Amino acid sequence: MTETTDGSTPGWFTATELETIRGRMPILYVNAVPVRVDDSGTVTHVGLLLGVAPDGTISRAVVSGRVLYHERIRDALLRHLEKDLGPMALPRIPASLQPFTIAEFFPTPGTTPFHDPRQHAVSMAYVVPVAGDCEPRKDTLELVWLTPEEAASSGVQQEMSGGQDVLLRQALAHVGRLS
Amino acid sequence: MTETTDGSTPGWFTATELETIRGRMPILYVNAVPVRVDDSGTVTHVGLLLGVAPDGTISRAVVSGRVLYHERIRDALLRHLEKDLGPMALPRIPASLQPFTIAEFFPTPGTTPFHDPRQHAVSMAYVVPVAGDCEPRKDTLELVWLTPEEAASSGVQQEMSGGQDVLLRQALAHVGRLS
Amino acid sequence: MTETTDGSTPGWFTATELETIRGRMPILYVNAVPVRVDDSGTVTHVGLLLGVAPDGTISRAVVSGRVLYHERIRDALLRHLEKDLGPMALPRIPASLQPFTIAEFFPTPGTTPFHDPRQHAVSMAYVVPVAGDCEPRKDTLELVWLTPEEAASSGVQQEMSGGQDVLLRQALAHVGRLS
Amino acid sequence: MTETTDGSTPGWFTATELETIRGRMPILYVNAVPVRVDDSGTVTHVGLLLGVAPDGTISRAVVSGRVLYHERIRDALLRHLEKDLGPMALPRIPASLQPFTIAEFFPTPGTTPFHDPRQHAVSMAYVVPVAGDCEPRKDTLELVWLTPEEAASSGVQQEMSGGQDVLLRQALAHVGRLS
Repeated sequence: MTETTDGSTPGWFTATELETIRGRMPILYVNAVPVRVDDSGTVTHVGLLLGVAPDGTISRAVVSGRVLYHERIRDALLRHLEKDLGPMALPRIPASLQPFTIAEFFPTPGTTPFHDPRQHAVSMAYVVPVAGDCEPRKDTLELVWLTPEEAASSGVQQEMSGGQDVLLRQALAHVGRLS
Repeated sequence: MTETTDGSTPGWFTATELETIRGRMPILYVNAVPVRVDDSGTVTHVGLLLGVAPDGTISRAVVSGRVLYHERIRDALLRHLEKDLGPMALPRIPASLQPFTIAEFFPTPGTTPFHDPRQHAVSMAYVVPVAGDCEPRKDTLELVWLTPEEAASSGVQQEMSGGQDVLLRQALAHVGRLS
Repeated sequence: MTETTDGSTPGWFTATELETIRGRMPILYVNAVPVRVDDSGTVTHVGLLLGVAPDGTISRAVVSGRVLYHERIRDALLRHLEKDLGPMALPRIPASLQPFTIAEFFPTPGTTPFHDPRQHAVSMAYVVPVAGDCEPRKDTLELVWLTPEEAASSGVQQEMSGGQDVLLRQALAHVGRLS
Repeated sequence: MTETTDGSTPGWFTATELETIRGRMPILYVNAVPVRVDDSGTVTHVGLLLGVAPDGTISRAVVSGRVLYHERIRDALLRHLEKDLGPMALPRIPASLQPFTIAEFFPTPGTTPFHDPRQHAVSMAYVVPVAGDCEPRKDTLELVWLTPEEAASSGVQQEMSGGQDVLLRQALAHVGRLS
């Protein structure tokens, strides 16, 4: 899971406090797989961010981030999508909060397909069509739109770490585009 | 389930043939609950059609209709939404075909909450946000947008027949708006 | 949401620490609606616990509780079901982690239909068939099995607080038993 | 989709009538992916049938078959599971009819990942844990239980035709076992 510095919402916890809590309770996350759809709702492209993974390597990832105190899941999705895709992305947050899966990132590798060395993160994962112009913030290196076939290719999958590749394939399967 | 004359796609079956088949095999349907959503995806209004039910009475219903031979579910949803809401409704067909429920309409009342005196219809039901202007065709008497609270009120529910009221409440529950 | 003293897993946080965190970040919960099903999977009965709500009143509730650090959701479901229904309940944890909804309990009433005065709890909600004998622990006053019709009746719904009534109706809608 | 002679329910249509209808309207199917689960609901094995595909080749497939007139989906699932896995399989039909996907089998290859040369079949697909002893009927050549890893391997996937491989991977993704 790519690091998310919630710098825009300071004061909830100091970095030290957050580190302490991260070692002792599960942290609530959301994952959003940004997609382009045609008029019939068919997914034509998947958006992947190129960024720095927790282990310091460059890797591809979907949008993710923490849910803050007193923040609705819908608002957390909007905030993280805007942060990563820019204010003109026009994301279509789902009408239902039923996620396509729950991804459990454990600090110990192998418990599930998902791994986050920093914490036990539990992430509700959604596919989110975006209709507008996307412009990633500066510290995100790149945003690329891939066809479902390209996104599921072994080359791209190997550039994803911590189980992000599994999560992406689960999303593609959910929208009927895992060929 | 409100009658759907698939007059725009003639020639698949004569009316007599269709009647014969309807008495001997389940017919595939789609249901679409049109909704208005805000920027966070929260459902603010539900669209209900006022039309003539199979039993001849006037009643409220969601969008429904048959899936035709060699027609994708996505295209059936688009076709029926356009037919009932007009060509400018801009429906957002879901990225995933996973329906929120399957409604089984039986010709015998009481087998399920759903009843259709004409046939055994099996309907895949979706919530579909519509973003554009809706203008029902002439033979649909009215389209009204109700808040979730209004739609779930006993007055409105009693104007729905054949289990349409149950289907609507299932849709509201799915989007977290069944209060 | 009924209080869950995780007394069986001591030492994660002191009560004071937990109180502090509860006021500053969302706490991860699971909800399990215990049901009896027949051979065709149809829900015939819903299990409701009679217990003490956070506000001190006696009320009916479904099974709920925290997810602990380094605990899988599946294991949290098992633990809380065993705690509330006894070791012989034989719960059938779903094969898929996709919940039927996410219930967001806010300390401020009115943000969502769900309210918990102690904390911001985000709960992944599942319907869980139980096949064995249920015997609630001593401090749970009662476990009753109601038909879906009884569970959705206004009498029972009024005995549920904090939005538990809404959650129960969402579960009934999901399994096609909200009449 | 493996052929299903509904010989146990004669008289609905003659073979000729069914052929005629199959060329003119979508036929309603169910798919059931039989799985073994452990106490926590985790899928440990997937059951695959070895049978004769519509094109005459030997191939692996999940359970599938038509929904008959006036038959509930739950009863169609039970009937086809019993037919393919024997009367002692003890399938746990899901409490909710929400399928994990809808598979649209078209007679024209390429419209979707799913292909059935005989017909346009629309199949509601479910994952069904089976707890008992499975004994396939005589004309099914074999039933094998594979781990999720084995089932997703390229060797097994190549033995599935008509998109059954895609459907199986969608099922594995849904239960969090697509590695």
